Amino acid sequence: MTDIDHTHDPALKSFIASANVPGCDFPIQNLPYVAFRRHSAGEPRVGVAIGDEILDIAAVADLLDGAAWHAAAACAVPHLNDVMKLGPAYWAALRSGLSQLLSTTDADQQSRVEHNLTPIAAAEFFVPVQIGNFTDFFASVFHATNTGRLFRPDNPLLPNYKYVPVAYHGRASSVRVSGVPVRRPSGQTKRSEDIAPVYRPARSLDYELELGFYIGRPSTLGVPVPIAEAGAHVFGYCLLNDWSARDIQAWEAQPLGPFLAKNFATSVSPFVVTAAALAPFRTAAFTRPAGDPVFFRQKCASRARCRFFSAAVRSRKSTGRSPRWSLTTPATAAISKSAT
Amino acid sequence: MTDIDHTHDPALKSFIASANVPGCDFPIQNLPYVAFRRHSAGEPRVGVAIGDEILDIAAVADLLDGAAWHAAAACAVPHLNDVMKLGPAYWAALRSGLSQLLSTTDADQQSRVEHNLTPIAAAEFFVPVQIGNFTDFFASVFHATNTGRLFRPDNPLLPNYKYVPVAYHGRASSVRVSGVPVRRPSGQTKRSEDIAPVYRPARSLDYELELGFYIGRPSTLGVPVPIAEAGAHVFGYCLLNDWSARDIQAWEAQPLGPFLAKNFATSVSPFVVTAAALAPFRTAAFTRPAGDPVFFRQKCASRARCRFFSAAVRSRKSTGRSPRWSLTTPATAAISKSAT
Repeated sequence: MTDIDHTHDPALKSFIASANVPGCDFPIQNLPYVAFRRHSAGEPRVGVAIGDEILDIAAVADLLDGAAWHAAAACAVPHLNDVMKLGPAYWAALRSGLSQLLSTTDADQQSRVEHNLTPIAAAEFFVPVQIGNFTDFFASVFHATNTGRLFRPDNPLLPNYKYVPVAYHGRASSVRVSGVPVRRPSGQTKRSEDIAPVYRPARSLDYELELGFYIGRPSTLGVPVPIAEAGAHVFGYCLLNDWSARDIQAWEAQPLGPFLAKNFATSVSPFVVTAAALAPFRTAAFTRPAGDPVFFRQKCASRARCRFFSAAVRSRKSTGRSPRWSLTTPATAAISKSAT
Repeated sequence: MTDIDHTHDPALKSFIASANVPGCDFPIQNLPYVAFRRHSAGEPRVGVAIGDEILDIAAVADLLDGAAWHAAAACAVPHLNDVMKLGPAYWAALRSGLSQLLSTTDADQQSRVEHNLTPIAAAEFFVPVQIGNFTDFFASVFHATNTGRLFRPDNPLLPNYKYVPVAYHGRASSVRVSGVPVRRPSGQTKRSEDIAPVYRPARSLDYELELGFYIGRPSTLGVPVPIAEAGAHVFGYCLLNDWSARDIQAWEAQPLGPFLAKNFATSVSPFVVTAAALAPFRTAAFTRPAGDPVFFRQKCASRARCRFFSAAVRSRKSTGRSPRWSLTTPATAAISKSAT
């Protein structure tokens, strides 16, 4: 996981005034990445949010040096994949370089930065990553218990739950950026009054606020990633809306899990908040009740409290303290045996 | 689906002698596509198998015209995606152009073709498509019944099976070309004698011969594809080995379906046999027993008998006549609500 350094200093200010307004979502300590363009103007590029603006990173790459320059130059594309592949040393260098650039007192540099800003209000956002695989983890014991109770009132939690991260693969190609309209799916559903299922629009369409994470650093197929190293593969986090057609799911999902009930849409926030930005907000992991199995040694048993996320979904609060599995365990499961 | 035309004429011969040997896997009527390179020589390219050889398609694109030229020029990359996106009219034109080129009597053209052949024995093969999503359909009622009997001897087939194609998403990034070694995965398993699960190498590693199909023509997210049009989205077929760690699966798969038990590897054949090549081998669909629900009107209720496939897996026979769901129904489920 990432250490705390000068980029986290609460006293650090940007020369971009809107970033210093108390309560601002994007102060200089955050620096989340996006894929954006000025409305209908050319190809999307990778930018960083600062105050009310987005900075076109590649356009100011020449103001950076070494690894920071290298990573910034990898931002001249419509997705973060090229930056993510570079790994944590480059991620840290880019964060440090951008932090310095956005707090510079050099008038020429300030002018160059200002020239490459787009107001958030004038920007169009895209899914920030070309997503090769998408996995949904059943990470909260309370959620798993509540859901299980619907089907098995007397035995809501299955025997595997406390031992192994339960998860399924979703459809990567139907992940959309937040704000893109979602069309209610049609599918087979069977209501209590039905003798046979009927193809019709889903009636029980819901959504779930989830914490998404992007595995940014490739691994080798067949080579396990140790839990202690899993954190170094996590580039950043997003908010994720797991749209679900529950009536379609109830009918189709046995024995192989959800399929069409989930793959019509998944929404992700445009902002990828880096693991580095969240370092100061890490807290102790959820404490398991006495007597629970301790299967994985949770060497990195801490997690990020997601202060920044509350800005994006004001109607609900998520601390990201999922009460069963710390991030490192699902991250290991997502990485291991995968090649990104 | 594709009509039968001059490219299927059993009397048609290639000037490449090995293609005319009786029993040859790759006569001029087949023309399957591959991603290949001569051992360690540069970037892979799309080729077509003919006899004992692979023709570098893009290298002879200038010998073709119009749509065939356009599609051939899209073969100068390591995957079939650019060709697949063009759609059935271009696929047909390319097949027709290659058929003509490989049966030409023009000495200059023959020389150009021969100059761009690589012996199969000297070629290295790659996964032929950049796979955006991978879905595994539970398509055989006999397989579903046999598998279900292991868990529910009295009630092997769940109520949804005869109404809706049951399927789950796999991990696209762990699809490998046939011949790449597969490493036995480790994971949690719980044997009858175990009080708690143990992390260890899988003991029950098996494989399943499946018929894979590539959805080649994009669709629009949220817009259903009518069953009658589903065939026009299917570019071609492959053999697929669905490696499975059954002991891991038995422990992890409830309630959300298989996950780590399946995603360590899936093997596909290097050869993509086109829907067009299989047109002469279509047969009537499996006849459902009287009294079974007829939920989908199976307008395209026919399927390809896969004579060409028997060449690749000689130890087992597959007719591709999956005894429950004709291809069009899973294809529609795979396409609809998806964007490729």
